Amino acid sequence: MKRILIINGPNLNLIGTREPHIYGTQTMEEIVDETDARIKGRASLQWFQTNQEGDIIDILQEAAGMGYDAVVLNAGAYTHTSLAIADAIAAVETPVVEVHLTNIMAREPMRRVSLIAPACVGSISGFGGKVYALAVEALL
Amino acid sequence: MKRILIINGPNLNLIGTREPHIYGTQTMEEIVDETDARIKGRASLQWFQTNQEGDIIDILQEAAGMGYDAVVLNAGAYTHTSLAIADAIAAVETPVVEVHLTNIMAREPMRRVSLIAPACVGSISGFGGKVYALAVEALL
Amino acid sequence: MKRILIINGPNLNLIGTREPHIYGTQTMEEIVDETDARIKGRASLQWFQTNQEGDIIDILQEAAGMGYDAVVLNAGAYTHTSLAIADAIAAVETPVVEVHLTNIMAREPMRRVSLIAPACVGSISGFGGKVYALAVEALL
Amino acid sequence: MKRILIINGPNLNLIGTREPHIYGTQTMEEIVDETDARIKGRASLQWFQTNQEGDIIDILQEAAGMGYDAVVLNAGAYTHTSLAIADAIAAVETPVVEVHLTNIMAREPMRRVSLIAPACVGSISGFGGKVYALAVEALL
Amino acid sequence: MKRILIINGPNLNLIGTREPHIYGTQTMEEIVDETDARIKGRASLQWFQTNQEGDIIDILQEAAGMGYDAVVLNAGAYTHTSLAIADAIAAVETPVVEVHLTNIMAREPMRRVSLIAPACVGSISGFGGKVYALAVEALL
Amino acid sequence: MKRILIINGPNLNLIGTREPHIYGTQTMEEIVDETDARIKGRASLQWFQTNQEGDIIDILQEAAGMGYDAVVLNAGAYTHTSLAIADAIAAVETPVVEVHLTNIMAREPMRRVSLIAPACVGSISGFGGKVYALAVEALL
Amino acid sequence: MKRILIINGPNLNLIGTREPHIYGTQTMEEIVDETDARIKGRASLQWFQTNQEGDIIDILQEAAGMGYDAVVLNAGAYTHTSLAIADAIAAVETPVVEVHLTNIMAREPMRRVSLIAPACVGSISGFGGKVYALAVEALL
Amino acid sequence: MKRILIINGPNLNLIGTREPHIYGTQTMEEIVDETDARIKGRASLQWFQTNQEGDIIDILQEAAGMGYDAVVLNAGAYTHTSLAIADAIAAVETPVVEVHLTNIMAREPMRRVSLIAPACVGSISGFGGKVYALAVEALL
Amino acid sequence: MKRILIINGPNLNLIGTREPHIYGTQTMEEIVDETDARIKGRASLQWFQTNQEGDIIDILQEAAGMGYDAVVLNAGAYTHTSLAIADAIAAVETPVVEVHLTNIMAREPMRRVSLIAPACVGSISGFGGKVYALAVEALL
Amino acid sequence: MKRILIINGPNLNLIGTREPHIYGTQTMEEIVDETDARIKGRASLQWFQTNQEGDIIDILQEAAGMGYDAVVLNAGAYTHTSLAIADAIAAVETPVVEVHLTNIMAREPMRRVSLIAPACVGSISGFGGKVYALAVEALL
Amino acid sequence: MKRILIINGPNLNLIGTREPHIYGTQTMEEIVDETDARIKGRASLQWFQTNQEGDIIDILQEAAGMGYDAVVLNAGAYTHTSLAIADAIAAVETPVVEVHLTNIMAREPMRRVSLIAPACVGSISGFGGKVYALAVEALL
Amino acid sequence: MKRILIINGPNLNLIGTREPHIYGTQTMEEIVDETDARIKGRASLQWFQTNQEGDIIDILQEAAGMGYDAVVLNAGAYTHTSLAIADAIAAVETPVVEVHLTNIMAREPMRRVSLIAPACVGSISGFGGKVYALAVEALL
Repeated sequence: MKRILIINGPNLNLIGTREPHIYGTQTMEEIVDETDARIKGRASLQWFQTNQEGDIIDILQEAAGMGYDAVVLNAGAYTHTSLAIADAIAAVETPVVEVHLTNIMAREPMRRVSLIAPACVGSISGFGGKVYALAVEALL
Repeated sequence: MKRILIINGPNLNLIGTREPHIYGTQTMEEIVDETDARIKGRASLQWFQTNQEGDIIDILQEAAGMGYDAVVLNAGAYTHTSLAIADAIAAVETPVVEVHLTNIMAREPMRRVSLIAPACVGSISGFGGKVYALAVEALL
Repeated sequence: MKRILIINGPNLNLIGTREPHIYGTQTMEEIVDETDARIKGRASLQWFQTNQEGDIIDILQEAAGMGYDAVVLNAGAYTHTSLAIADAIAAVETPVVEVHLTNIMAREPMRRVSLIAPACVGSISGFGGKVYALAVEALL
Repeated sequence: MKRILIINGPNLNLIGTREPHIYGTQTMEEIVDETDARIKGRASLQWFQTNQEGDIIDILQEAAGMGYDAVVLNAGAYTHTSLAIADAIAAVETPVVEVHLTNIMAREPMRRVSLIAPACVGSISGFGGKVYALAVEALL
Repeated sequence: MKRILIINGPNLNLIGTREPHIYGTQTMEEIVDETDARIKGRASLQWFQTNQEGDIIDILQEAAGMGYDAVVLNAGAYTHTSLAIADAIAAVETPVVEVHLTNIMAREPMRRVSLIAPACVGSISGFGGKVYALAVEALL
Repeated sequence: MKRILIINGPNLNLIGTREPHIYGTQTMEEIVDETDARIKGRASLQWFQTNQEGDIIDILQEAAGMGYDAVVLNAGAYTHTSLAIADAIAAVETPVVEVHLTNIMAREPMRRVSLIAPACVGSISGFGGKVYALAVEALL
Repeated sequence: MKRILIINGPNLNLIGTREPHIYGTQTMEEIVDETDARIKGRASLQWFQTNQEGDIIDILQEAAGMGYDAVVLNAGAYTHTSLAIADAIAAVETPVVEVHLTNIMAREPMRRVSLIAPACVGSISGFGGKVYALAVEALL
Repeated sequence: MKRILIINGPNLNLIGTREPHIYGTQTMEEIVDETDARIKGRASLQWFQTNQEGDIIDILQEAAGMGYDAVVLNAGAYTHTSLAIADAIAAVETPVVEVHLTNIMAREPMRRVSLIAPACVGSISGFGGKVYALAVEALL
Repeated sequence: MKRILIINGPNLNLIGTREPHIYGTQTMEEIVDETDARIKGRASLQWFQTNQEGDIIDILQEAAGMGYDAVVLNAGAYTHTSLAIADAIAAVETPVVEVHLTNIMAREPMRRVSLIAPACVGSISGFGGKVYALAVEALL
Repeated sequence: MKRILIINGPNLNLIGTREPHIYGTQTMEEIVDETDARIKGRASLQWFQTNQEGDIIDILQEAAGMGYDAVVLNAGAYTHTSLAIADAIAAVETPVVEVHLTNIMAREPMRRVSLIAPACVGSISGFGGKVYALAVEALL
Repeated sequence: MKRILIINGPNLNLIGTREPHIYGTQTMEEIVDETDARIKGRASLQWFQTNQEGDIIDILQEAAGMGYDAVVLNAGAYTHTSLAIADAIAAVETPVVEVHLTNIMAREPMRRVSLIAPACVGSISGFGGKVYALAVEALL
Repeated sequence: MKRILIINGPNLNLIGTREPHIYGTQTMEEIVDETDARIKGRASLQWFQTNQEGDIIDILQEAAGMGYDAVVLNAGAYTHTSLAIADAIAAVETPVVEVHLTNIMAREPMRRVSLIAPACVGSISGFGGKVYALAVEALL
């Protein structure tokens, strides 16, 4: 059974109460439960959240050593500003799938550019909390 | 059982022989077979391909009337140039999911902008021929 | 009595149900009736709608041969992307008036540029369905 | 009978002799006469011209109090540089129609942007002196 | 006791009724009263409003001669278009504080640039009518 | 003897009467005759014209199957707007030479960019109707 | 009595010795003392400094839970590069006032844009160390 | 003897005390005296200063009627923002020479563009107060 | 028999060994021989190479006086940076054809702009060493 | 008596026959004679022309050593492309006045920027051949 | 003997295995050994690596206090995104030399801009692992 | 012993007196002496200076034939404008190191881009006259 690490970046711990007109009212806890239920028995999921850009780089570098076969990454706002996370994804051999709760191409100009996309194997955005399960499906 | 229309835009009929270093060697026929097999019994898929921008608009307008519940759209190069297709998606109530075989954000600048994305419910790109099945999963 | 051809471009057949918060709830049928009534006896109006960029070029080229004295053109989204339609207008001697239901200068950046305007004798935008009658008035 | 105020901005008093290859040889006096004749009995028109940006703002603010139902505004070059006039239009409830003698989208880049358009109910440009009568028609 | 001149630029006389969803419903008269009350006994305030760009330059040039120690300036839309007002501020020795009722950085792109800011001793924006009192506090 | 397909895009059927100060007074019929005469006995030329973007893509895809060894393409205004035609050229193995009657680099900015050039084996522009014969020479 | 958290971002601990020709010679200790003295008895101030982008996000998320009614934030250079901090401000309900020691609009282009401003209730810049007290006044 | 009108725009009345590190310490009175002395007996000079954009337009329109043969114009900051003054220069037949005390091409980007230059017969900048006499020489 | 001067600009003497993955392995000597052989008896060709921008201008100015009827110019990198060569071409009456070994529109952005193209009678690029013979054909 | 070196850059030797609709029909020889006659007895003028960018740098570096007190420079097209000439002007102490026959601000965008202007003591453009005499006047 | 701190930013710990076609196969351990060997006896080197932007700022602020005379900084991807690190370098008196393993000017556009360069005493890039020793040489 | 050619471009002969606040007061002669002394016995250095762009290309092409193993190039202002020099570096096999006395990234925008950098093996800038010796060290 594949082991998959799911990394959530800045402010994703607040999903559900954070700007619900944009991100919806489903909390991250509910998303975790729903995703785990859907994937159950087909892959082992581990969830990690941090507001620190550097921590995302650290864990991406360590993911293979920790036994993970792949990573699902919602880098939040760092998607648009962090070339260093993009470099980390390109530097490791672990495949990374980029996800976003909202369709970033439908938002303000700065959010329409993903610096990390070119280093990822694929990108899924805009289906709300279901993107995590879809990303895991894509990796299986 | 949901009825889903899958629309392929310009040059997607040539997939498999067309620039295989970019798009891979899997033909559209193989993609259709693989997708149908995977979704079998869970949704009814209908495939349509055209090189005409206007035909994509016509069929998007008619999809609901023809009994389709949702659309999966790979608009090919029109993704980046057709505001008219974007308007058609916004004009109808049928939900549309945007897919791309390659990760468009990792390609040349002109292909990094999707005019149609803001009108779609979600966007999946970069997993090769698997994006059609993932899009159908997302719609189910 | 002058014969005037009114060409509607992509998605204008859906006016009334299409994004009514932007385009209003008056249908194209109602607009046609209202315009015909207002112009009655002063000009002969012929209405044509297509979603195909090339069809607009074809009919613009043929309008004079078909006996039309002038054209009123609502090119929809092609207004902003079609240099080929602009070339067709410049290529023929039939005078063309550009119309838009909404004030395109008040919308998103991409819609603030009209590629076809430089080739038209005039431009009317922003009064809803009344722009057709105003354009005919301007041509009389 | 509706009372309509027609405001002409900078250099429009010189129309007829001013760059006639661009603006034509019809003088503003002739345009006034022609417009008044055409609208006669259907609306009461009052004409006002100034070269001062601030005077246009003053009179826009005062138009309702002076009993005008609507304004036709040819802001001349201020169309492209005056956010303050745009704010004045947005600040008052009197409907304002923007007019231009020439098709501004066919001119040099700086004249292709109208700062005031987003605040107006509609925009008519490019039919020479007839734009005033067309704007009044649109308001009736 | 310091004598401070407060200059309001174009359309600020309409605050309270002008686009209240943006600028609020507090009128300029109420703002004047509230500010005067708060500053009472600590500085002498004089209020001046004009829609004319040139008048703002005139009074800035004359402020020192008229006995004012400092100026609080809400230049309205001229903030974004008037290099001449910026030059006037830089040309005189009277310190000028720039204020805005709304947070201009949160508005449309054209309003995010202040041409006058570089010549001012400081800038306060976004607290509604309280910015006048805050600016006076900053000057005391 | 090589079989060469010559494709003319939108509005090129009007050459000779269309903006003759730009495109000259030689008609497309005269260009065809002159080119055929010059190439006679050295290659077999087939001429095709359409105003439809999608038709150009269709015929490019079918050219090899129809027995053509190479294509000469004057894509008209689609040169500057059609990424889909560029993709079609890149997708097929048939060599394509791009031609233009005028020197597009000497025209307005939008016409100075050719989206299709990168996919063509070469580009010839600016010699009027002679570009077709020169392109055939280059292919022989 | 309101409890207000004052957050200083990167390099603000060095104020006083850091580029004194830009930031002045007053140290952060002196600014803290001066601000505390001025606000004394009217609000309870807590000061926090960090060079870590993620730490600013962490504490913004926790401020309400820690009992703070409002935040004064000088994000230093992160003002211009951190969309993640902007997201954190928008995600929480605690009101945040942005301050800067210098007038950022008078500095190099990159510093003229504040990514966080749109999420703040107001912005004060350019009065040196006094901006902290002014921000607290604005919040009271 | 030619009659020449010299128009000085905003803030030029303050020359000598206004930012002397940029504009020098020579006052406008001294410049007038020096220029008059140098030109004495060869032309009749009339000096006019205003801070109002509209006044510059008014006087440009009236210059010929007032008997002036030519105009020397230092439009100050309006050089860079006033398309309306440029239109006025183009609208009248009176030749206008543009002058600037400083070399505007060596200053900040916004001052490197002169909107009025295209309408003037020539442009002289960067020799301090001597530009007025040089412009008159050029006109004689 | 027409006399044609062929000018090669900087680094074209190194063709064959210079970046052969871009420019091919055919040397300039081989290109000269092949071109001369192909054109033999139909025109008299003279070849000239220099690395100096000014020398290209000198010889363009002197070409007519030296008896040349036309010029074929491969300006190399000066194509993209030399407005002075463009001016020289425009200044003389000798017709000039621009050639490039590679398709410059398919290369990096800086090479996609030809400053000299607007002054040339035509442009041929992308067929390798054959462009010289094609250009001579076009001139005959 | 001051010794002044007048440097003419590329293609200025062709003035009079070169694009006379832009540069006029007066030849450089006539300009030299007219300028010498006008300045006679007040300064000693030496004229130099070259098409080489490097030669302009060489002579600028040597001008002081050759006994020249000042330089009048018409750098032609190098005005817009040569940072090296700008550096040479800044590197020497000899004052340099920039001149242009035409008003460069009224021409195409690339010619509206002068790289050398910031290093010159002043700039005169747009009076045809008279600019040389005006520049010498300015230096005396 | 000088004490020099060498700071490596994000992902530089992976050098040798990270994208070896770009960064080479020499590991950071090998680079450290080679550099230490080369500098041995002439300076004392201390190496530090972190993926955290804030940690780089912290250690730059503390370097002088820890007894370091100078810093060699390879900021990795933060070079292009961190104004905060640039501010830290400018804020401290310790001289900092910027190094890069690759020639950043030869890479994708985003990597061609160094935000930190203006604050450094010098910059060395493109010689692979030798840049550390060269930087130390430059500091000695 | 390696033979290294050091090429100095335009205006570098004036170093020491040329804008000393930017380039320092050390003359090129002193730099040559210091560099020769430092490298003595380890490499044979030959110095060459020219103001001509074309001469730099000539000598780069000839360097290998003249027996040089490598080149150190300070192209001065041509660094930012000469694509032709960049092409020459790419065309030859001799390794070239780019040097600059100042840190070009800390200067005005136009100087922050090096056209030649992508063709060089490495780049050293900002240590004053020491860059020549550092470049030679890097080559040894």
